[in-house]
Amino acid sequence: MADVLTVKLGDRGYPIVFGEDVGREVQARIAQLGRAGKRIAVITDEHVAAKQGAALKAMFGDAPTWTAVPGEQTKTLAELGRILEFLAGEAFGRSDALFAVGGGVIGDLGGFAAASYLRGIDYYQIPTTLLAMVDSSVGGKTGVNLAAGKNLAGAFHQPRGVFVSTSLLKTLPAREFAAGAAEVIKTGLLGDAALFAQLEADPLKPGDPRLPEIIKRCCAIKAGIVESDERELAKEGGRALLNLGHTFGHAIEQATGYSAYLHGEAVAIGLVAAARLSLELDLISADDAARVAAAVKAHGLPVKLKAKLPLPQLMEATARDKKVRAGQRRFVVLQAVGAAAVRAEVDPARVEAGFRAIGAA
Amino acid sequence: MADVLTVKLGDRGYPIVFGEDVGREVQARIAQLGRAGKRIAVITDEHVAAKQGAALKAMFGDAPTWTAVPGEQTKTLAELGRILEFLAGEAFGRSDALFAVGGGVIGDLGGFAAASYLRGIDYYQIPTTLLAMVDSSVGGKTGVNLAAGKNLAGAFHQPRGVFVSTSLLKTLPAREFAAGAAEVIKTGLLGDAALFAQLEADPLKPGDPRLPEIIKRCCAIKAGIVESDERELAKEGGRALLNLGHTFGHAIEQATGYSAYLHGEAVAIGLVAAARLSLELDLISADDAARVAAAVKAHGLPVKLKAKLPLPQLMEATARDKKVRAGQRRFVVLQAVGAAAVRAEVDPARVEAGFRAIGAA
Repeated sequence: MADVLTVKLGDRGYPIVFGEDVGREVQARIAQLGRAGKRIAVITDEHVAAKQGAALKAMFGDAPTWTAVPGEQTKTLAELGRILEFLAGEAFGRSDALFAVGGGVIGDLGGFAAASYLRGIDYYQIPTTLLAMVDSSVGGKTGVNLAAGKNLAGAFHQPRGVFVSTSLLKTLPAREFAAGAAEVIKTGLLGDAALFAQLEADPLKPGDPRLPEIIKRCCAIKAGIVESDERELAKEGGRALLNLGHTFGHAIEQATGYSAYLHGEAVAIGLVAAARLSLELDLISADDAARVAAAVKAHGLPVKLKAKLPLPQLMEATARDKKVRAGQRRFVVLQAVGAAAVRAEVDPARVEAGFRAIGAA
Repeated sequence: MADVLTVKLGDRGYPIVFGEDVGREVQARIAQLGRAGKRIAVITDEHVAAKQGAALKAMFGDAPTWTAVPGEQTKTLAELGRILEFLAGEAFGRSDALFAVGGGVIGDLGGFAAASYLRGIDYYQIPTTLLAMVDSSVGGKTGVNLAAGKNLAGAFHQPRGVFVSTSLLKTLPAREFAAGAAEVIKTGLLGDAALFAQLEADPLKPGDPRLPEIIKRCCAIKAGIVESDERELAKEGGRALLNLGHTFGHAIEQATGYSAYLHGEAVAIGLVAAARLSLELDLISADDAARVAAAVKAHGLPVKLKAKLPLPQLMEATARDKKVRAGQRRFVVLQAVGAAAVRAEVDPARVEAGFRAIGAA
């Protein structure tokens, strides 16, 4: 049975459809677009095309399809240009629509292509990873990387609809499933203590029948935050709360050249560091911090750096983080399990303690 | 004395400041941004840097500046990428602002860079050509060309302010000034009969003291149209009216590989063709059509093709125009001098008569 969450953003609002397999709902939407004289195109990657070929064929038939090389290195302006030329080559018009089928890279790239082509056409997302289901389904952030850093170019462009089929997760490598679980844990920690408790009691697994409902809950929490701060302009809280664990995580990714850890793995370690920082600031108890590490570990995720990283390099990376405002480091901290807040002017010694807790030296 | 027009687009509204020299108003705004802790960067081109070096220095001092190669060939995703890397290299943040100083190319490119960098930062326009003053100051259209066609990628991104100094036009080549006058004539034709009569009686010249007031009038008419149809979604009229003369003009540009005519020159010829089409459709009189051609000619603009172009090629190009909806050619026609309308299902024979009137064979 499909279940629907509506992201409420005025005339940019849209439905997210959740279920074990919502391919029929996708087909119904495509048929509806066809009756309105709108054409569709698909962007996906070679991994998805190989693993989900039959599902793609059933949903999209012979629709024009762009198949990208998988991986973060494809998220460039050059690839964006190739996709835009592909749409132009298909003589796509302003009322036609793009379907992005894949993980975060394909969602970001396809979304930015849809935002830019003819200054904006409709797009739909079909996330194929747990990370994309809970993270990219809500927020409207699209973009590509620059040589200078990740996600530095892009657009806010809300999809017209998102279709979440959790059966797609059965073919996902275990390591990627766990990386997505890190964002689920993060969501529980920042806004849903009951969800966190559920994850502690019974860690998520592929094929888990709770998946549609748990992913919906994560999307609902993110939607509530995004609805109040669509363009990340809030001075206090707002979308910044979603970065729990991410300032530490980005520093780890940057210091290792984005090669040693999946994003979700870096976030997992970042959650442990953020919990330690919150403990240092006397916001949570040592027991709470231990619960965070235990939940991370129970999902097959790292709680410490695999190899030591130099503390000065990590501290330097947090100062360069995109979320830094006017040179001031800002951290998302826990006030309790299930409640987060943004703190500015954090004593660097406390941040260092957070990094030391995960094995920096 | 500076004069101000406010473009009313809710929280995306902004002022346009008009005058012989509004450099002081630019400096005042930069000082205000500085007090708010915001940094600025400048994008311009080599022509403007050479001709207006002193004015740039007075306004921007030592602000980081990107100087592009002049001309349409610079309006690419590759150049956009270089500008985005430049902003990242300057460690620009979300609250910093970009000033675009130049003609339409710099405005489109700089605007798209501002729209894309960190998913959108503020920008200001200082147009240096008559065309950019009347056309790019209002509308929020930004973008670059693809191999497949002009302006196929971009964003709607409204500036935070526009500063129009008509003294900049004194160093503009006569041919470019005339090309800008074509858009002024167009604006009179589609919505201001008194303005058109004024242009007939006394054609515009560089240094003309009426320039600030006339440019303001053109911006006000365009603003009225854009305010009612910001994203060009109106089914009837709306922004499409601004394309008077442009369907013919684009066909001429396309058929000549964008090399033989400046955009404004192609529009000028297109206005004559559109008037002839309107006459063919019995909407205006032969006298009215003759007035259009006479006004175009009086501004040093062509009323006919310099070299014959094949009619089938031009007709084919109109069918491929971006404004075509669901394969249906739509033309903006005159209902009177000072009033335009959009017509669908125009008899191709009438369109051919329009093209023949300007020398197609």
